[in-house]
Amino acid sequence: MTPWIDIVRDPLPGRRGKPRTSGLTMVIDTGLAPGTVRDIVESAGDWIDYWKFGFGTSALYSLDVLRSKMDVLSTSGIVPYPGGTLFEIALYQDKADRLLEKARELGFTCIEISDGTVEMDAPIRHKWIREAKRRGFVVLTETGKKRAGLTMSVEQYATQLAEDLACGADYAILEGRESGRNVGFYRSDGSILEEEIGRLMELLPSPDRVIWEAPQKSQQEFFVRKLGVNVNLGNIPATEVTALEALRRGLRSDTLRLV
Amino acid sequence: MTPWIDIVRDPLPGRRGKPRTSGLTMVIDTGLAPGTVRDIVESAGDWIDYWKFGFGTSALYSLDVLRSKMDVLSTSGIVPYPGGTLFEIALYQDKADRLLEKARELGFTCIEISDGTVEMDAPIRHKWIREAKRRGFVVLTETGKKRAGLTMSVEQYATQLAEDLACGADYAILEGRESGRNVGFYRSDGSILEEEIGRLMELLPSPDRVIWEAPQKSQQEFFVRKLGVNVNLGNIPATEVTALEALRRGLRSDTLRLV
Amino acid sequence: MTPWIDIVRDPLPGRRGKPRTSGLTMVIDTGLAPGTVRDIVESAGDWIDYWKFGFGTSALYSLDVLRSKMDVLSTSGIVPYPGGTLFEIALYQDKADRLLEKARELGFTCIEISDGTVEMDAPIRHKWIREAKRRGFVVLTETGKKRAGLTMSVEQYATQLAEDLACGADYAILEGRESGRNVGFYRSDGSILEEEIGRLMELLPSPDRVIWEAPQKSQQEFFVRKLGVNVNLGNIPATEVTALEALRRGLRSDTLRLV
Repeated sequence: MTPWIDIVRDPLPGRRGKPRTSGLTMVIDTGLAPGTVRDIVESAGDWIDYWKFGFGTSALYSLDVLRSKMDVLSTSGIVPYPGGTLFEIALYQDKADRLLEKARELGFTCIEISDGTVEMDAPIRHKWIREAKRRGFVVLTETGKKRAGLTMSVEQYATQLAEDLACGADYAILEGRESGRNVGFYRSDGSILEEEIGRLMELLPSPDRVIWEAPQKSQQEFFVRKLGVNVNLGNIPATEVTALEALRRGLRSDTLRLV
Repeated sequence: MTPWIDIVRDPLPGRRGKPRTSGLTMVIDTGLAPGTVRDIVESAGDWIDYWKFGFGTSALYSLDVLRSKMDVLSTSGIVPYPGGTLFEIALYQDKADRLLEKARELGFTCIEISDGTVEMDAPIRHKWIREAKRRGFVVLTETGKKRAGLTMSVEQYATQLAEDLACGADYAILEGRESGRNVGFYRSDGSILEEEIGRLMELLPSPDRVIWEAPQKSQQEFFVRKLGVNVNLGNIPATEVTALEALRRGLRSDTLRLV
Repeated sequence: MTPWIDIVRDPLPGRRGKPRTSGLTMVIDTGLAPGTVRDIVESAGDWIDYWKFGFGTSALYSLDVLRSKMDVLSTSGIVPYPGGTLFEIALYQDKADRLLEKARELGFTCIEISDGTVEMDAPIRHKWIREAKRRGFVVLTETGKKRAGLTMSVEQYATQLAEDLACGADYAILEGRESGRNVGFYRSDGSILEEEIGRLMELLPSPDRVIWEAPQKSQQEFFVRKLGVNVNLGNIPATEVTALEALRRGLRSDTLRLV
């Protein structure tokens, strides 16, 4: 029960509660302590669906720290997973198979497959998506290089997203990095290549199965405006989850003015 | 007792302790967990006077979370209040009256009246300032739209600030948003329209009753330089309170060089 | 034992563990609560060597708060010290001697000597470096003014760094402020004067005894690329320590692509 119930209605109505299959919020965690995770989840857990241990950070924690973070998240109905960069490193070191095995052993139920840094041919990508599904993982894929500019045509982006889903990926993520700057569809000031991303949206078969990495408020606002309050958003800093939830519901000026 | 007492004196002297009616620091909280609030207040509580639950975030928390945040703050002599956007939404939904009633019931003793997003005529604005005062609230008002640029002339800003105070507002706040960028007297890089704000300062009848939202260090430095160590500053991120207190006292290079 | 041991190897090998005399990470803390410090150190303590209470913040805390922060750090093998600005203020107030005395009394074992804001002739600087060493402190010095641009020639920077070390300083720090913007070798967008800093590197007698303040990821990446995974880096925000450790080891795209 919220404090102002019966008094203030969400200006943008229709926000879905948990469990949900769209309207997802995915957090990027680049090194939070277990105590901090516990605090955040206590007040904002209802608005978080997926929790990414960014890039290779999960390889740095002690087993105790990793487990205590994972426990806090799982208990709150949030799915933790290691960032795609870790998978890329394992693949590059010829250990992709053992990584999946170990991920399972550590209690991960979700895995990300990406090629943001390491090169990966489509057949290899598809093989690992299928393999991870076969082993029972929720599979997230990510499209886009972790460097400046569009590295493919809009059509190629759309094709890769569609193919990933066709191979069994549960959600396909569009790369935005931690910063939302100077990468893919984001310019170096964080502004959006609106025309290009609009064309991409039109080409997508299942917009509900795409997660848009949108670390900055202006980017989050753009997606809420274009795709509604239940758009899937990713790479949200843990400290911004509550502000994003307010933005989704029109409880913040940037979206309240859409009413 | 501070550690270096008798050794290091504040380079900028005269900083007031609590309770104080000027030299206020108002924090903007866009979604901190109760545990985090407790931690912050433990070490920085003496330097915080008002604590704003930014925009509509207070409508998202569970009753437990809201109450535990409010308890921590009140115990430390800090006044919590819901952001003006919440009042604007209630007014727009024809529930302003019930919002004040419920605020009281929840234990709020302070309320903000603003028109950053929703349009409000002067008579309506004045009516609600008076009504909130009549019901015993500390009343903060906010002047300025939550969008780019000056939306009124400097004279109109001064008039609204003065009228709010004349209607009984305890403090009148000048809008700066969470970012301090691309809003009111702040350019998109956070720099200040110094000439315009200088003119505004000259037109103000009671500078001690104005709170300047100044989220960025360069903005805080500007106001300390122009109006002294006991200037009222708002929208300070909770994590920046200690750094601001150092800035006020000349314990940081940016103001130490004024000595 | 880390979770993925035997599976994922560090793409950039050779990172040193504690205790180490190079590969240092120095954190800047501009006002964290004791509870937050405890949380951070619990998961990231192994990657932090020095912990600076930024500028004059240590003069603001109560004795209890200061001691509880220092205890948490010391227990984790991290060396806390007051920022150089505090020493500059004491010197300006003719209390440098008593500051060292009090620092010792409070339990500090490390001190920073700088002239970022207050003017200090070389003989005075050298005297205090020697004096602090004589009293048993680990001595860090800092070179560079806390204002825009290069305030000396590259040769003068190199000379001061070398002289500090010759006078007994344990490490000489190159100024980068909290922001890494618009100061010394950093432009206002955080980019690096690469040619100048390259010349400085060539002129340094003991690169292992220089700590480069590099608050921004792009700056950290630059130094890892130029000077290796065990470069000494300073002014790292406490929340970025884990991300930096990943960067050092090639567990993040920005350095993984160097492999």
